[in-house]
Amino acid sequence: MDDEGHDYEQASVALHERTHGKLSIVSRVPLASRRDLSLAYTPGVAQVCLEIAKSPRRVHTLTLKHNTVAVVSDGSAILGIGNLGAEAAIPVMEGKAVLFKEFADVDAFPICLKTQKTEEIIACVRAIAPVFGGINLEDIASPRCFEVEAALQDLGIPVFHDDQHGTAIVVVAALTNALRVTKKDLSKCRVVFNGSGAAALACARLLLACGERGVLPKLGDLILCDSKGIVHAGRADLNDHKRELASKTNRTELTGTLSDALRSAHVFIGLSTANVVTPEMVRSMAADPIVFPMANPTPEIMPEAAKAAGAALVGTGRSDYPNQINNVLAFPGIFRGALDAGAAHINEDMKIAAAQALASYVREPGYEHILPDPLDKKVAPHVAAAVAEAAKRTGAVRA
Amino acid sequence: MDDEGHDYEQASVALHERTHGKLSIVSRVPLASRRDLSLAYTPGVAQVCLEIAKSPRRVHTLTLKHNTVAVVSDGSAILGIGNLGAEAAIPVMEGKAVLFKEFADVDAFPICLKTQKTEEIIACVRAIAPVFGGINLEDIASPRCFEVEAALQDLGIPVFHDDQHGTAIVVVAALTNALRVTKKDLSKCRVVFNGSGAAALACARLLLACGERGVLPKLGDLILCDSKGIVHAGRADLNDHKRELASKTNRTELTGTLSDALRSAHVFIGLSTANVVTPEMVRSMAADPIVFPMANPTPEIMPEAAKAAGAALVGTGRSDYPNQINNVLAFPGIFRGALDAGAAHINEDMKIAAAQALASYVREPGYEHILPDPLDKKVAPHVAAAVAEAAKRTGAVRA
Repeated sequence: MDDEGHDYEQASVALHERTHGKLSIVSRVPLASRRDLSLAYTPGVAQVCLEIAKSPRRVHTLTLKHNTVAVVSDGSAILGIGNLGAEAAIPVMEGKAVLFKEFADVDAFPICLKTQKTEEIIACVRAIAPVFGGINLEDIASPRCFEVEAALQDLGIPVFHDDQHGTAIVVVAALTNALRVTKKDLSKCRVVFNGSGAAALACARLLLACGERGVLPKLGDLILCDSKGIVHAGRADLNDHKRELASKTNRTELTGTLSDALRSAHVFIGLSTANVVTPEMVRSMAADPIVFPMANPTPEIMPEAAKAAGAALVGTGRSDYPNQINNVLAFPGIFRGALDAGAAHINEDMKIAAAQALASYVREPGYEHILPDPLDKKVAPHVAAAVAEAAKRTGAVRA
Repeated sequence: MDDEGHDYEQASVALHERTHGKLSIVSRVPLASRRDLSLAYTPGVAQVCLEIAKSPRRVHTLTLKHNTVAVVSDGSAILGIGNLGAEAAIPVMEGKAVLFKEFADVDAFPICLKTQKTEEIIACVRAIAPVFGGINLEDIASPRCFEVEAALQDLGIPVFHDDQHGTAIVVVAALTNALRVTKKDLSKCRVVFNGSGAAALACARLLLACGERGVLPKLGDLILCDSKGIVHAGRADLNDHKRELASKTNRTELTGTLSDALRSAHVFIGLSTANVVTPEMVRSMAADPIVFPMANPTPEIMPEAAKAAGAALVGTGRSDYPNQINNVLAFPGIFRGALDAGAAHINEDMKIAAAQALASYVREPGYEHILPDPLDKKVAPHVAAAVAEAAKRTGAVRA
């Protein structure tokens, strides 16, 4: 039994034992006659090879590249479990591929790399890129995930670290509707993030970008906390990513602990670890705060406790409470839209368009309904259309 | 129109334009309810990851690794076309994956590498190996193909260069039945190979191995010719592979050209280029010779011309003549058998078993029927059973 009181864990092992994995690769061409064989394979296929050699862009229309995404991990930061290596990462990456297929008809294939060296990961993804129309980086530890993603932006296909941007997109969508429901003005809000990982930084960045582009009001203030407390420019122990963020946030130059940050804050966004927020901290926040304790599987504070302490609206990563903030709402539609548009990369405008599409999909947001149902199959096409439109509008498509 | 007078080339391009490639990746688990989502993905899947981390061998039963093969090419020797690079190789590797699926229910995925450096290819295949139960190397130029294959034999999964061994297996099977039909005793035959590529060398090696193991009679003699004529120990221009073969063959220390080699020879096996064998050369062979001119798409000598010059039995790579000597008869069953047995590599005994199974599948071989029909779907299971048996018998299976 897991923390949620379900038998998911043993049932999942039993499922995987029975099915031996979750994916299958099938042919989409007939192979009943010698002629079929001569068209799908030799001798006919030689001409297809020559066409691509002559006009390289035709690889996007004559091969599986048109719809295939690699889900790439080095197994260094698997879910909330940690660094278990390439083989142990496979079930997650296969699961991700299942979701890609089911929600967005994207053909996704798991690539789990037997190396955790940044340069080797980059070299390997570069080498295997020809068959893929996109690269979804997944469960790669920070700061390696930043370096790998940045180094691969010249591949000519979207390279997107979902733990960062997928999470950020869903959190921004959730926050957009939560602000609407609770009638808060973001320009008067202090938003406190807790978490020093890639997801927390990406969420903060996307929220700032929304303000810069006028998509959301500019934040009253944003405070980032990590395991050592409030991130501020005076700290000597900050990495480049946090230092950059510190320079753009925490205008009041607050110092201290997460407790200090939360006092009078309007929004809490947790991407950290279990039970680090107490009811007292929630009580110290401004009236009717928005609380997103998203640590998995056990939140920073359980929803019941947060509500009892005065939280107006709570969202978590869990499927057994309302307002599940789940990446599956974003990544299938984002890649679907990028592939449909022929995007060469996924830029900030495309991410913001995805967040807005996700928020606007919910016609009448409520306290227990700020996001779509993760199983709603109409969500991904809705997100995809917005992402494709943004890609074309901003010139993010292949020449 | 191609050399065979068919419209295969344009029809194949039209097929690929319509289908945008030939493969699709599908889910084999349901995803209709929240519970399905919790088992295929989070939170349930975390336990599957932990099981693999605890017992690494379970990756073979809990993930797609149990049935998935990478078809790996660097695009340096695509079919008979040449070095066109990774993107242009994709249609061939996809085609190969289609055949794997259709004939042996193997899930095969094309990996076309954007590098032609031996060390980088080795590093990349090593890195991506976790998700695969086997590696089919394909269309990699010689001698790189030898180096890559040799370097990867410690991966714990079969790594098999099909252009070498798949071809060798089918040629040995074809020759076995051709000798039976023409009532020739191999121990009294001189077999002449023409071709300096990986396939010719592998065929010669497998034929010698059959003799060493008593599966076929020891050859009277084997003469290898390359573009400079007969390979003999006295030549200063031989690479290591040819030098090794020269030391084991050409007992009469013959020198000269292909013409000289063929005089009084009993068998010709061509894996070289179009039209290098003349009717005069065939006429100079011993009575009723076996002639396998397998250059693609145009043979070393056309079957009509070989027959008119006295060839008793002719086999080519072409589908429009009898006796098509086609790799598709071997590789699907070989990998099926290796996966079924849990093979850690594919050894000589497994290759020989495949060749024997292929030969014995033809109940009553005839002059125009030395091999099974490439579209016969019962061939691969027959080959697979023999390969799996040989793997177990010789201890080639995972510990």
